Amino acid sequence: MFAQRIQHLTSSIIREILAAAQQPGVISFAGGLPAAASFPEADWSTLPSYVKQYGMSEGEPELREAIAAEARSKGIRCDANQVLVLSGSQQGLDLVSKLFIDPESSVLVESPTYLAALQSFRLFQAKCQGVPLKGPGLDLELFETQVRDHKPRFAYLIPSFQNPSGTCYSVQARQDVAAMLDKYGLPLIEDEPYCELDYDGVAKPPICSLVQRAPWVFQGSFSKILMPGLRVGYLIAHPSLITHLVRLKQAADLHTNRPGQWLALEYMRSAEKPARLARLQAFYRERRDAFAAALESEFSDLADWQVPSGGLFFWLKLKQVRDTRPLLQPALAAGVAFMPGEAFFAEDEPPHGYLRLNFSHTEPELMVEGLRRLRQVLLSAA
Amino acid sequence: MFAQRIQHLTSSIIREILAAAQQPGVISFAGGLPAAASFPEADWSTLPSYVKQYGMSEGEPELREAIAAEARSKGIRCDANQVLVLSGSQQGLDLVSKLFIDPESSVLVESPTYLAALQSFRLFQAKCQGVPLKGPGLDLELFETQVRDHKPRFAYLIPSFQNPSGTCYSVQARQDVAAMLDKYGLPLIEDEPYCELDYDGVAKPPICSLVQRAPWVFQGSFSKILMPGLRVGYLIAHPSLITHLVRLKQAADLHTNRPGQWLALEYMRSAEKPARLARLQAFYRERRDAFAAALESEFSDLADWQVPSGGLFFWLKLKQVRDTRPLLQPALAAGVAFMPGEAFFAEDEPPHGYLRLNFSHTEPELMVEGLRRLRQVLLSAA
Repeated sequence: MFAQRIQHLTSSIIREILAAAQQPGVISFAGGLPAAASFPEADWSTLPSYVKQYGMSEGEPELREAIAAEARSKGIRCDANQVLVLSGSQQGLDLVSKLFIDPESSVLVESPTYLAALQSFRLFQAKCQGVPLKGPGLDLELFETQVRDHKPRFAYLIPSFQNPSGTCYSVQARQDVAAMLDKYGLPLIEDEPYCELDYDGVAKPPICSLVQRAPWVFQGSFSKILMPGLRVGYLIAHPSLITHLVRLKQAADLHTNRPGQWLALEYMRSAEKPARLARLQAFYRERRDAFAAALESEFSDLADWQVPSGGLFFWLKLKQVRDTRPLLQPALAAGVAFMPGEAFFAEDEPPHGYLRLNFSHTEPELMVEGLRRLRQVLLSAA
Repeated sequence: MFAQRIQHLTSSIIREILAAAQQPGVISFAGGLPAAASFPEADWSTLPSYVKQYGMSEGEPELREAIAAEARSKGIRCDANQVLVLSGSQQGLDLVSKLFIDPESSVLVESPTYLAALQSFRLFQAKCQGVPLKGPGLDLELFETQVRDHKPRFAYLIPSFQNPSGTCYSVQARQDVAAMLDKYGLPLIEDEPYCELDYDGVAKPPICSLVQRAPWVFQGSFSKILMPGLRVGYLIAHPSLITHLVRLKQAADLHTNRPGQWLALEYMRSAEKPARLARLQAFYRERRDAFAAALESEFSDLADWQVPSGGLFFWLKLKQVRDTRPLLQPALAAGVAFMPGEAFFAEDEPPHGYLRLNFSHTEPELMVEGLRRLRQVLLSAA
């Protein structure tokens, strides 16, 4: 006899599509994989032997110091004691769910939002309430209505180059959200895996640096700027939350692997870090621009989109609105993969007509061909 | 407002004692740390670049094959599809808790049992029912009574060199437990981090290899035989459970770090593996024997114990029964650390008079001195 939560246990549709998308010949716009060509060389030969032994649940002290220092430079008031190193930032969602969610608890999410966050919150039997994105931010009025109606345990936001929409909240939008969180004392979970993938120099202060009294958790990742196979991420938490989160981490996996933490610290300390990040941004900017040009030539009559200033995704809205899920199998058969937009909405009846297309993992010379295949699928299905 | 489970969130007393035990001059019998001198040399310089990218939630295919092959050699009927690589075997407890435990669910544990398992099950609001160890196994009659009275979701057992008691179930005891599990269709969680630390050649078939119809999960670890800082462990599950467990792993941290998985596979494949394991067993056997001799000279009038055939711990029963928890602070002040036995019992009113002493992490020449300090604390407190 299983626990009740198992009724809410869904496989990640992304991972299933990814498996299908790995068939030879398929051009995949489906996943969110960093480009292998973007990974730095790593010199593992100087790995110190202390990494072999058990470590601290909180993470390596020097890595926590380095993370806190970088966060302070972004305006987050924190010290190293508020930093918890994670086994990838997905683990942060698990710990936050454990901290806040009882069966039937409400949580606020953006509409659309990160698919795996919905899965984690739902596994803990939360009711996810969506707040539509509006311009460079949230629909504030609906945000307040949802807070009043549902008394959510927290708001989960991805304000920089949001997955899937690419939205980057303006400074004003961040201030407005921060004021609303303070008004209701609503905890903020701010998830920022993409904030360094800023191709047009539009980075903004974290919302948690703007709140005055609401508790907050800020999540960051080394998966996009260093390498995801290490499984090293982190959270920084308001002093009222960090002790609980450290204990939840202890219970989850004792501590994060130490070889990966060591490499992350080497990266943080490297004099080449700014140059590396600039190269990474240039690499992805070129792919973003190539994809924008390919879209312009192949999709301008079929869909609307905004060119994202960062992150890894284009978010298309079809001019002829339709459920995009039935397009997936024909697309895979035609040799192209994408993510149906419906999966990213908390609503039981999600809006139709959206597609998420990843631009980071496909060689530029294959983008036009992939989009032509997708175009044919759309036209054939029309 | 936190989730209800947070009321059950306790810090690991082991980790708090470990912090205190790391003060200079303290001889620590408290933790379960492998000896640093036991760790093999590791050549990281040939780490392949594929480990940088995201990997599969299930784990590296070749590592899963190697784990399944070794398990089959122990009698476990399984293939690689039933193997899930974990971020340390602590994660297995988290996944199993998610799979089976609703608030107020009962689970059966040995009495005494592994402290961190109690913490994990309690965090998910389980009621833990203890079944006393009896001889080289469980008190079967009480086991059946507990199954009938409490309808537990699973039985959690550590049959080889059990933590904390050192008990190694006999073949007969394993068969009896397997028959009881089959009789009630009760799922078995068999946790075997110590089964390779077998100093007297007494290893026995896993209980899961003896059950006919009860579902089961077998957990193993690389922390004790390779190095714990990698955070790589695994579970092998009955076909009816593995799909759920893989999805729960996905939601918890996507997948286990790939550099650590690579090193674990190198270890599994190495022609030197049998020789390495024999050296490790010899290393710990020597420490076990040194500790037994030190105990004999310092504690034979104060306590009773059995010399364990494997694992990392001696389990002492004081001749004068008393609550051992108030002894901890005086012991730390006197420069010696131990684990009070009370922490290892599921019962609200745990039995008194037990101490767990680790022998793996202390240099043999310090063992007598540490035990003399502990003896003085006991005598002063009497």
